[in-house]
Amino acid sequence: MKYISILGASGSIGTQTLDVIRSHPDEFQLAAASIGKNVDMARAIIEEFAPRLVAVADRDAYDKLRSEYAGKIKIIYGEEGLIEAAVFPKTNIVVTAVVGSVGLVPTLKAIEAGKTIALANKETLVTAGHIVTEAAKKQGVPLLPVDSEHSAIFQCLQGEKREHIEKIILTASGGSFRDKTREELKHVTVEEALRHPNWSMGAKITIDSATMMNKGLEVIEAHWLFALPYEQIDVLLHRESVIHSLIQFRDTSIIAQLGTPDMRVPIQYALTYPKRLPLNSVKPLDLAEISTLHFERIDFARYRCLHLAYEAGKRGGSLPTVLNAANEEAVAAFLAGRIEFLAIEECIERALERHEFVQKPSLEEIRQIDAETRKYVQSLL
Amino acid sequence: MKYISILGASGSIGTQTLDVIRSHPDEFQLAAASIGKNVDMARAIIEEFAPRLVAVADRDAYDKLRSEYAGKIKIIYGEEGLIEAAVFPKTNIVVTAVVGSVGLVPTLKAIEAGKTIALANKETLVTAGHIVTEAAKKQGVPLLPVDSEHSAIFQCLQGEKREHIEKIILTASGGSFRDKTREELKHVTVEEALRHPNWSMGAKITIDSATMMNKGLEVIEAHWLFALPYEQIDVLLHRESVIHSLIQFRDTSIIAQLGTPDMRVPIQYALTYPKRLPLNSVKPLDLAEISTLHFERIDFARYRCLHLAYEAGKRGGSLPTVLNAANEEAVAAFLAGRIEFLAIEECIERALERHEFVQKPSLEEIRQIDAETRKYVQSLL
Repeated sequence: MKYISILGASGSIGTQTLDVIRSHPDEFQLAAASIGKNVDMARAIIEEFAPRLVAVADRDAYDKLRSEYAGKIKIIYGEEGLIEAAVFPKTNIVVTAVVGSVGLVPTLKAIEAGKTIALANKETLVTAGHIVTEAAKKQGVPLLPVDSEHSAIFQCLQGEKREHIEKIILTASGGSFRDKTREELKHVTVEEALRHPNWSMGAKITIDSATMMNKGLEVIEAHWLFALPYEQIDVLLHRESVIHSLIQFRDTSIIAQLGTPDMRVPIQYALTYPKRLPLNSVKPLDLAEISTLHFERIDFARYRCLHLAYEAGKRGGSLPTVLNAANEEAVAAFLAGRIEFLAIEECIERALERHEFVQKPSLEEIRQIDAETRKYVQSLL
Repeated sequence: MKYISILGASGSIGTQTLDVIRSHPDEFQLAAASIGKNVDMARAIIEEFAPRLVAVADRDAYDKLRSEYAGKIKIIYGEEGLIEAAVFPKTNIVVTAVVGSVGLVPTLKAIEAGKTIALANKETLVTAGHIVTEAAKKQGVPLLPVDSEHSAIFQCLQGEKREHIEKIILTASGGSFRDKTREELKHVTVEEALRHPNWSMGAKITIDSATMMNKGLEVIEAHWLFALPYEQIDVLLHRESVIHSLIQFRDTSIIAQLGTPDMRVPIQYALTYPKRLPLNSVKPLDLAEISTLHFERIDFARYRCLHLAYEAGKRGGSLPTVLNAANEEAVAAFLAGRIEFLAIEECIERALERHEFVQKPSLEEIRQIDAETRKYVQSLL
């Protein structure tokens, strides 16, 4: 039996993780979960999965649940709650499914507590890759990717040697606007942006997919996860999201992972690794039915956010933190109808240009740079 | 340094194996080679690679070479020569690149001598899979596939567990006639049949590719190589031969191997396994350049030879021997202009129908059944 903590159980990755746990009651048990502010969802999770600890976002949710479950389940709130769920003693694997930079400290605490990390929070590696990978290495803790692209690379790497890699190739669907010119992008709406052609995901990540910042953040994550220089990380446009990513080895042989675009596959792989269990709720891929797969080179001028991410990643230091914080603020402003779609990249670019570079930012410096960047982007709106 | 014996050094796989050895003089050395009747080629190989033993097909070639290389290199001939090359003491890996059932006994002798087998001879497993896999298991000798499809499956299986496989999917280009109807197949010529769209191979295997008997033999081989029932072996039409084969695991995840259609990749992988070495002479695959990949379900009525192979494989015993021998004779007759293209499958079907089934044929019975089948097919011409 593996005991699981989910940070962010009410989100898209969180609920799909619960679905995987539900399918394998003999393999997995939910030990602890953080559940934001959704009290009804917290109740449903408690009733179905009986976790020992539930962390909620605020005092209000805490008060409601505490009166109902007093003496049965530990209820806590705030950032402390997230950390307690992350380091819960019985837990073997922590699924870091919270969105945004709030996932960083709990993940580090979980690593220090020797937990295996199923990493679904992009910002952890993007902003603090140097700190997190060093901590994981020191503790001998595996960082198992949950993202479909990184899971693909991780699966393809099994039985292979990292030093035989020529390059890794992350595939990108191109998001909601892949068939639009930059001219047409000027007037797109929030609703249009939220219609992802292949994947069912949260709002923020769907916008990131449309700007391709999502792929940019994945490139930076891949750099840290697989300890590869940016020159060995390529991106390939692949509309169907059927090939989730590929590794080209030095003998020209390429190993790829394919499948139905369903996040439960990489989530379950992270939980069962190195085993594979049946996953009956997912319809297997039928290539004959799909019949055609397409591939295109990336146009970096078209996808400016991806270019900015490569640049920030290559220069490193504090720049990925600026990239990420500026992006979060700009996307929130776009979703709120405050700025236009193409203003997202503009905000990020201006934040990057203005920033004073720090080579190896500490956690405290990352927090500070993150806050300053957000303030600056707010000032642009 | 790995010492290599090549059985069939003058053929298509043989010369490409020599090319791999040539590219890595610090890794590989040709220890022994069998070279058919081509005395000029034997000379060229001796001059360049300085093997210690050379086996030729007949007395005539033997006499010529022996006078030239007396005292320097051991020259032998006949089936004995093939066996001596296979069990040459210094050899670590035997590449069985001879075409036809002549490869069987030398391969078994090499296994008994504890040599690693790089298996490029289809008939070894097709006719005597039960004997060969048992011998390899007993001796603890690895059977490394050289065929691109089996090498793909073998590469995808690294780091994975066989019991997690849902099915393997062998891709098939469809051969020279994939765009022709059965009606149109009635009048095709030998020259047309020899024009394979993707791979540069020998004549016999190119015809097998057009009838798809090639894929049928590969299905039977895969059954033995990976110890999988036929229900777990699928074939998928994939025109571009870019995805060389795939494994679908029980969590629906699919791992695939891709690459430029160049036999030097799987040959080198068998020689370097479990390492991978650079292979600078092969242009890496560029998916963006290829741009589109196609997949279609197999029509077993269209590709009757594939259907016959599945049936012979499933029933097992001596039937694959009959399938293979009948096919060899029929293809030879087609290449000689003696029968039409569609008569190939007819000959095979009649030979299978007529045969008296043997459950677990011995080597001697296999030889006998092979000879009888050939005689019978001859009688049909």
